[in-house]
Amino acid sequence: MHSLQFTTESSSHGMVERDFTVGEVPGVLWSPASGSGPAPLVLMGHGGGAHKKHPAMLGRARQLVTGCGFHVAVIDAPGHGDRPRSARDEQEIAELRKAQAAGEPEGPIVVRYNARLAEVAVPEWRATLDALQELPEIGDGGPVGYVGIALGTAIGVPLVAAEPRITAAVFGLMWPDALVGAAEQISVPVEFALQWDSERIPRDAGLALFDAFASEEKTLHANAGKHFDFPRCEADSAARFLARHLGGAVTSPA
Amino acid sequence: MHSLQFTTESSSHGMVERDFTVGEVPGVLWSPASGSGPAPLVLMGHGGGAHKKHPAMLGRARQLVTGCGFHVAVIDAPGHGDRPRSARDEQEIAELRKAQAAGEPEGPIVVRYNARLAEVAVPEWRATLDALQELPEIGDGGPVGYVGIALGTAIGVPLVAAEPRITAAVFGLMWPDALVGAAEQISVPVEFALQWDSERIPRDAGLALFDAFASEEKTLHANAGKHFDFPRCEADSAARFLARHLGGAVTSPA
Repeated sequence: MHSLQFTTESSSHGMVERDFTVGEVPGVLWSPASGSGPAPLVLMGHGGGAHKKHPAMLGRARQLVTGCGFHVAVIDAPGHGDRPRSARDEQEIAELRKAQAAGEPEGPIVVRYNARLAEVAVPEWRATLDALQELPEIGDGGPVGYVGIALGTAIGVPLVAAEPRITAAVFGLMWPDALVGAAEQISVPVEFALQWDSERIPRDAGLALFDAFASEEKTLHANAGKHFDFPRCEADSAARFLARHLGGAVTSPA
Repeated sequence: MHSLQFTTESSSHGMVERDFTVGEVPGVLWSPASGSGPAPLVLMGHGGGAHKKHPAMLGRARQLVTGCGFHVAVIDAPGHGDRPRSARDEQEIAELRKAQAAGEPEGPIVVRYNARLAEVAVPEWRATLDALQELPEIGDGGPVGYVGIALGTAIGVPLVAAEPRITAAVFGLMWPDALVGAAEQISVPVEFALQWDSERIPRDAGLALFDAFASEEKTLHANAGKHFDFPRCEADSAARFLARHLGGAVTSPA
């Protein structure tokens, strides 16, 4: 088992930001600036083509850390952020760009590419969680949540299915094809978002993935608009959902 | 035009509660206890078999009044609360009970009965809104919202379609059959709730009603569970939705 090595530490936006590695995998841990007792941990998955410190990650982290008092960790997915792309990554990305340029369906390529990334990323996440729980400010008995849409869902669904320590999850914006089997094994509370008029993921495909979760408590948020119209208020809703299920007050970010 | 007559006034739960009549129609107006300047008004529709002061109405009112600083008005639907039932009301209710007891579909009866109530209730609501806007603490230029599920949706959809003063609405838990035409005329922001495993309203029927709204900004909240599992957190969500669109801070109820 690899332990967690912190590489840099800084403070901004009311959070302490610490870069870390677990083995070869680079990550970032955001924590409340005012040191406190053990707090819930949220694992956050970034989107395809993004990375651990993408502005969307930073914005969500700020809500969860300064609004809820949680720790938030993100790791770079394989071939993303500070990690090298393999020849096969390059090939899949080239195929994706080609399909997009030609106006052909990108679903089959994204589904296959993301499923391959998930195979690598799930054990990386589990090792990262092991290492994070060694930290005294997190500990190994506290609540753990997951939030990630698009690629963050392609990796998150098999992760949450495999990982009993994660007790609430927020997903969305992904095709069901590679994920239905894992979703059927998930019974923790789930919030799932889709875009009602998505030009990428057919409406019925999004509804089918939501339907597959075995969770007794699950909620679908479907918003009018296309893929990139995904509304900012869903990040607020995700923070409230995680606060409700992991414990902790929600206040407006400072 | 009938003016509004207040009949009783009391205070509880941090709200001023004033019963009123507009013509023959009895209603209740809940307002912030600390007198303030003009504030947004939310019209609230109760469910079938309920009435203007049903606990669900009181709970939602408390969130909107003490949490958002709004005024909230509810009127009794025809044949509900303090209003007499007609012979035809009695007949429809008897048919509904019979269908429920026999395990037969109640949809066709509810749809027909509620559509008839809406024909009467929509002009009553519009006259009530006229009269409420004569009050100095409401005024005729402020934002107006609507929230109502089940019967509150059967009445609310044609009301919001007809009433340009209402600029945001929360609906849910109703069959689309009598409402699609009116929903297609609604373009203000809408939040719509349905129960994913409803034993009463088929999933596709609920999705079809959500789909019909012409609103550029609309959001569907579908929760796992049967009709009466409708979760309490949707009332919180409705309050936040109305606060976002009508203006006003949201704080936790006192």
